[in-house]
Amino acid sequence: MKMEARRFLLLLFLLSLLSISTAATTRKIRARKPCKSMVLYFHDIIYNGKNAKNATSAIVGAPQWANRTLLAGQNHFGDLAVFDDPITLDNNLHSTPVGRAQGFYFYDKKEIFTAWLGFSFVFNSTEHKGSINFAGADPLMNKTRDISVIGGTGDFFMARGVATLMTDAFEGEVYFRLRTDIKLYECWQQV
Amino acid sequence: MKMEARRFLLLLFLLSLLSISTAATTRKIRARKPCKSMVLYFHDIIYNGKNAKNATSAIVGAPQWANRTLLAGQNHFGDLAVFDDPITLDNNLHSTPVGRAQGFYFYDKKEIFTAWLGFSFVFNSTEHKGSINFAGADPLMNKTRDISVIGGTGDFFMARGVATLMTDAFEGEVYFRLRTDIKLYECWQQV
Amino acid sequence: MKMEARRFLLLLFLLSLLSISTAATTRKIRARKPCKSMVLYFHDIIYNGKNAKNATSAIVGAPQWANRTLLAGQNHFGDLAVFDDPITLDNNLHSTPVGRAQGFYFYDKKEIFTAWLGFSFVFNSTEHKGSINFAGADPLMNKTRDISVIGGTGDFFMARGVATLMTDAFEGEVYFRLRTDIKLYECWQQV
Repeated sequence: MKMEARRFLLLLFLLSLLSISTAATTRKIRARKPCKSMVLYFHDIIYNGKNAKNATSAIVGAPQWANRTLLAGQNHFGDLAVFDDPITLDNNLHSTPVGRAQGFYFYDKKEIFTAWLGFSFVFNSTEHKGSINFAGADPLMNKTRDISVIGGTGDFFMARGVATLMTDAFEGEVYFRLRTDIKLYECWQQV
Repeated sequence: MKMEARRFLLLLFLLSLLSISTAATTRKIRARKPCKSMVLYFHDIIYNGKNAKNATSAIVGAPQWANRTLLAGQNHFGDLAVFDDPITLDNNLHSTPVGRAQGFYFYDKKEIFTAWLGFSFVFNSTEHKGSINFAGADPLMNKTRDISVIGGTGDFFMARGVATLMTDAFEGEVYFRLRTDIKLYECWQQV
Repeated sequence: MKMEARRFLLLLFLLSLLSISTAATTRKIRARKPCKSMVLYFHDIIYNGKNAKNATSAIVGAPQWANRTLLAGQNHFGDLAVFDDPITLDNNLHSTPVGRAQGFYFYDKKEIFTAWLGFSFVFNSTEHKGSINFAGADPLMNKTRDISVIGGTGDFFMARGVATLMTDAFEGEVYFRLRTDIKLYECWQQV
């Protein structure tokens, strides 16, 4: 018996070492399914010199050959816009917003349309309080594009994940609507 | 005895499975308290056409209806500023800086003051070497606002957490001071 | 024997508690070595009024005292550029690109050259599909500078790590090449 007991202890010790090293050093993590999923839409109305009242975004930077009233040639390369867009649960611009998408995007390729985005979803409703922060490349000619959830606050404290963007509508050079499928793979809880 | 031994082994095995799955797949994490906390202040003096010598930030982007010398109307919507601000341990602009806050902010709402920030705290003192990177929405009319710590280097290697911003002072449209309560919930160590 | 068995169980219970608390709450993590390492180069050709065809980046924001054709005085303080740069495996601008570095940088200090970067490596080759997102301060007079890998998608799903930048070449105010040593310490796998 004494022998067996020692063997258990040894095994226990080895297993606990293994477990600590798994958790703390290799950091190869398998993601089975998101700990939280949400689908939301946001709506961007770009200022074009005539829609000051309705516009939710405006060009604030542009290359030397362009201006800040109209999107530039060469696939808008260099145009930088700041936005404060309503977030809705469905694809209707006139639905009651559940939050605001606030941030910036710029067009960054001369040959085709591509953009880069840094923004937050800011919630202040009975359902959600807090924010989700995003960053990443948006090759917007692709049907779906993945960007990163780089952090969050409040209900989304310390969140990490991936968001899939889809252009749900595009009207001239004034309005676009993005469907955002958010999948969080790290969900923290403050206790 | 043999039976009991087997039961221990089975229990051990089940527990170890549970432990691995907790660490590696569900990623629902409880945060009891920060692994590191810091309170720091940074000081922003915005260029206004007359203070070139003292200014620590400047407007570099603005909407079509505004200029880069004065903050725009409509709650500065669209104004984008780049900054290199001193960081101090207390709320005195003239204290010896312990680092520099470097990054950008822009005002992004027409109806009220809100901003969005992307920046780093860059330390190079005897106490701290390295950087902390931040991003997030700053609804600056609120007493406290949370943004994300999205990463770090050096002493703050791989850090993640939340920073709470408070406007500690605001003088005209030239100077503001932000108190920053940094709470890290992921602290890594390079070995 | 019964006593010993109980002692084992108690020990087991205590150890399992310890293990769960290590994994889930203190989050002090030891990083032994990266789970993935890559060395890549990217090449930036800044628009200067004469190189519209070859330029891969352009100034889109500048302070009031500067313009968007030439980099500003005072160590380019306030100049904000948008880029779409080729990524290569070696330091040859003319090697076949393995992806594009897309994002923005701005110069943010009056006294010396420093910059801040937000960008993505976008891969779409047989070897790699997906993107890596970066952010951080670039004190570019230093031989090496660390920025954060804040997320990733596709092959780099949920990646976190550190990238070390080195200026590999700098020609006038038109061309620079950055060597990027990427070290990921969190590698996720979608299953």
